[in-house]
This record gives sequence, C-alpha cells and structure tokens, in this order.
Amino acid sequence: MKTRKMHILLTNDDGIYAPGIQALHRALEKIARVTVVAPEFERSSVGHGITLGHPLWSKKVDRDKKFFGYAVSGTPADCVKFGLKVLLKKKPDLVVSGINHGANDGCSLFYSGTIAAAREGALMGVPSLAVSLATFEKPDFTAAADFAAKIAGQTAANKLPKKTFLNINVPHLPPSRIKGVKVVKHGAAPIHAAFSKRKDPFSRDYYWMSGKGPVTSKDLSNDTNALSAGYITMVPIHCDMTAYDLLEDIKSWKL
Amino acid sequence: MKTRKMHILLTNDDGIYAPGIQALHRALEKIARVTVVAPEFERSSVGHGITLGHPLWSKKVDRDKKFFGYAVSGTPADCVKFGLKVLLKKKPDLVVSGINHGANDGCSLFYSGTIAAAREGALMGVPSLAVSLATFEKPDFTAAADFAAKIAGQTAANKLPKKTFLNINVPHLPPSRIKGVKVVKHGAAPIHAAFSKRKDPFSRDYYWMSGKGPVTSKDLSNDTNALSAGYITMVPIHCDMTAYDLLEDIKSWKL
Repeated sequence: MKTRKMHILLTNDDGIYAPGIQALHRALEKIARVTVVAPEFERSSVGHGITLGHPLWSKKVDRDKKFFGYAVSGTPADCVKFGLKVLLKKKPDLVVSGINHGANDGCSLFYSGTIAAAREGALMGVPSLAVSLATFEKPDFTAAADFAAKIAGQTAANKLPKKTFLNINVPHLPPSRIKGVKVVKHGAAPIHAAFSKRKDPFSRDYYWMSGKGPVTSKDLSNDTNALSAGYITMVPIHCDMTAYDLLEDIKSWKL
Repeated sequence: MKTRKMHILLTNDDGIYAPGIQALHRALEKIARVTVVAPEFERSSVGHGITLGHPLWSKKVDRDKKFFGYAVSGTPADCVKFGLKVLLKKKPDLVVSGINHGANDGCSLFYSGTIAAAREGALMGVPSLAVSLATFEKPDFTAAADFAAKIAGQTAANKLPKKTFLNINVPHLPPSRIKGVKVVKHGAAPIHAAFSKRKDPFSRDYYWMSGKGPVTSKDLSNDTNALSAGYITMVPIHCDMTAYDLLEDIKSWKL
C-alpha cells in the first residue's frame, strides 16, 4: 500500500514573492505535497488582523514558468482561512508559515502576521508551525528551511494537541555555529516602545515607531535569550488566553 | 490632602468619532481624568497589528466645541504605544479600550483591535481593560459605559498582576434584564470560517468572509455562552502564550 504524502498549506507574511517562502517551499516539497496560499504583497506586523470590511480574491502565481501558488489579497490569517475554506478540497495535514525575514520571538508573537497565520491554522483545527530567521540582513534561508522541514515531519508524526502550534526561530548562523535546539517559553519583554520624531516637508511633526529589541540575559529559559545565544528555539503556543489564576480573585470584586 | 484623580488613557478600534468611545468618555470622566488617543478612522478586526512601515501622526479633535482627544493615523495598538510614549507625560493609571460596537468574546480576542489595545496596555505595564457591547444593531451604550466605569474603579483599587488585562462584554439589554456578572474563561469556538462567493462587474470571482457566530450551549463557564444567556462577562487575560504542558513532550522529539 502506498503511503499518502503529507499535504501542507504554506503561507507567510512577507508575501508570495518573498525569498523565505521560496526556500521553505523547496525544502517542504521533498517531504510533502505543498499548496502555497500567501499574501499578494508584504503584510508584516499586521498581527492577527482579518478582512471583513471588503472582499478577498486570489490569483495563481507562477515561478520559473511553473505554478507556484495562490496570491490572496488579504492578511496572513485571511490566507489560512481562504486556503482552508475556498481553495483546498480537503483539510491539509499541516499549516506552515514562513520563513519570516526577521525573528519572531517574545512579544513579536502578538504583532507578527507569520505567527497569526499559524495561530489561525491551530484555531481552524490544523496542526501548525511558524518559522522565522533572526536577521534583518541579506538572509540565507537554507539551514532554517531544512530544519523547518524536519520539524514539519516531526509535528505530523507526534501530533500537537488541539489549538496549539509551534513557533520556531532560527539564528542566522552557519549550521556549524548553531548551538542546538532549545524548547523554551516565550519571552515577554516589550519591544517597539519608542518613537523617532521628525518633520515632514510641510514642517508638521510625524513619528516613526522604533525601539530596540528587548534586553537579553543569560537565562536561556525563554526564546529571546536562547535565540540571541545561538540556539534554534521552539515554543509551543496555546490559544487559551484565560488567566485562570485570577478567576477567583476577580469574583471577589464588588461588581 | 487631596486625593489625586485617576488618569485613564481611553482608546478604541471603531475610531475617535464613534459613539461608543463618546459614551465611555462621559462615564469615565465622572471618576477620572481621561485622555482620548484613538484611531482617526475605524480599524476593526486589525488584530494586534502595529505600524512599522510608515510613520504616524496625531491631531487634536474637538467635540461640541471642546477638545475631545487625539486622533492617531494608526491601529488601536499603535494608539496605546503612541499615547504612552509620545502624548502622555506620565504613565496613566489605566488603559481602557471601547466601547466596541459588537461583541468581542471567544476567538474575537485574536481579531479585535479593541482587545489588542488593552493587550498593548498590559504589555506596556499599565492595568488595562477592553469593553464591548454585544450588538450590531443601533446601540444604547449607557449601561455598558456605567458598568465599565465601575470596573475601571475596581481595577484601580484591586490592581491586576503584570501583563494581564480584563475583557468585558455587555449584552445589549435593558439593565433590568441583564442577569448579572460572570467571571469566566474565554470561549474558543472558531468564527468567520466561511466565505460568500460573488462575481465582480468583470465576471471575476471574489469572496467575502462571513460565517455565523460560534454555536452556544448552556455551559456558562465561557464568555460566549454566558454573554448569549444575558450575563455581563469578565475574562481575565494573560499575555504568556506558552503551552507549558507541552514543553517536556516536545523535548522528546527527534530534533
């Protein structure tokens, strides 16, 4: 009996023409059938936004004269919904989002479209993972893509509980200098907490959000620190945001 | 000695001109000094998106010939960052986001700009709450605004642990028909999981995201069910999304 090939829905937030999704596509094709459903253009830092106020469409995109995937006119989370409900006939085995150009550790979890796509996959009942490469320089995605493909196979083999997904960050180092893999919690130091004040050509003030990355320490129990120390990080993420330990406390408030 | 009046940063995702933020402003002004920093126009369902790719500005907005607040050219989360880092001289005592026109229970937690603003407040170290009114009809915000003001006072008095916030939903009922307040967990049934297929004037397909709300049951332990049964719901939300129970499991994968 022939084993059915795993089917992966691949998306990202850097857009369908980004090199990160190409590299990941190449690596995943070795182990799975891959359907690309990705934003038509870059939708970085759009969080888990979805498009309700106007319609969506998709178009087929070729690459090297061969069909590559579907470009969708929406956010990364839209792409996952649209892929699962409109384009794919059957639920895929896995949703993979990436490779993002830039780390998505710590608080980026909330801002990142890459992460939102994986979260949307999890909410829709599909095992999901997000993959990011920690550099803003010209990236080499090869090592990250190979690692992601390995994890994709492991995720399918080991299964993830419902409404959970994996967030993977890979340091931008030659494979020989990557120290290993750390399964850790997600860091929560605030980022993007500063603004650069400038003048427009009409002498009006405008502001550009900036802010350095979070301060790191030698405590390697969170992704921000472990990543900056040269480890690939894997964080299992859940979708239940209830602060259970506060439920009883708040019941005692005078309401 | 005069007691210092509480200072509240008030924002929303329906935009600075929306009636919900006006109603909440009126109610909060009775107990606090209020600084409004809200999106210039509606930014519903933008999730926790932030604006990194282009600049932000703010302008002063009057209402009834009196200064009302600052309109910001960004998302709800941008407004909180911008308010805290650019407009306000000192950290406020509370960030309040709302009143949203429409419920934000269950999975809306991920899509809602209203919720993202409160989450951003929490990430930035300010006690925060989000308030939504569960109707898409012409709303009367009075009861929800009064309740939110009461909770604002209680939140300041009782304090919330760091990086937690409250998500409040109020049913759109006359106060006498509201059954009470339930402190509950957040529901997680998927929503917006369907698409309406249509033809544009050039005979091309387009799709509008739709989908009914989640199916409710009589189990009143989550916000979706309790809200639909006529209760005001309060869910304490935390910002650590690590699935701790999976950490050890995943360490045993073949990596």
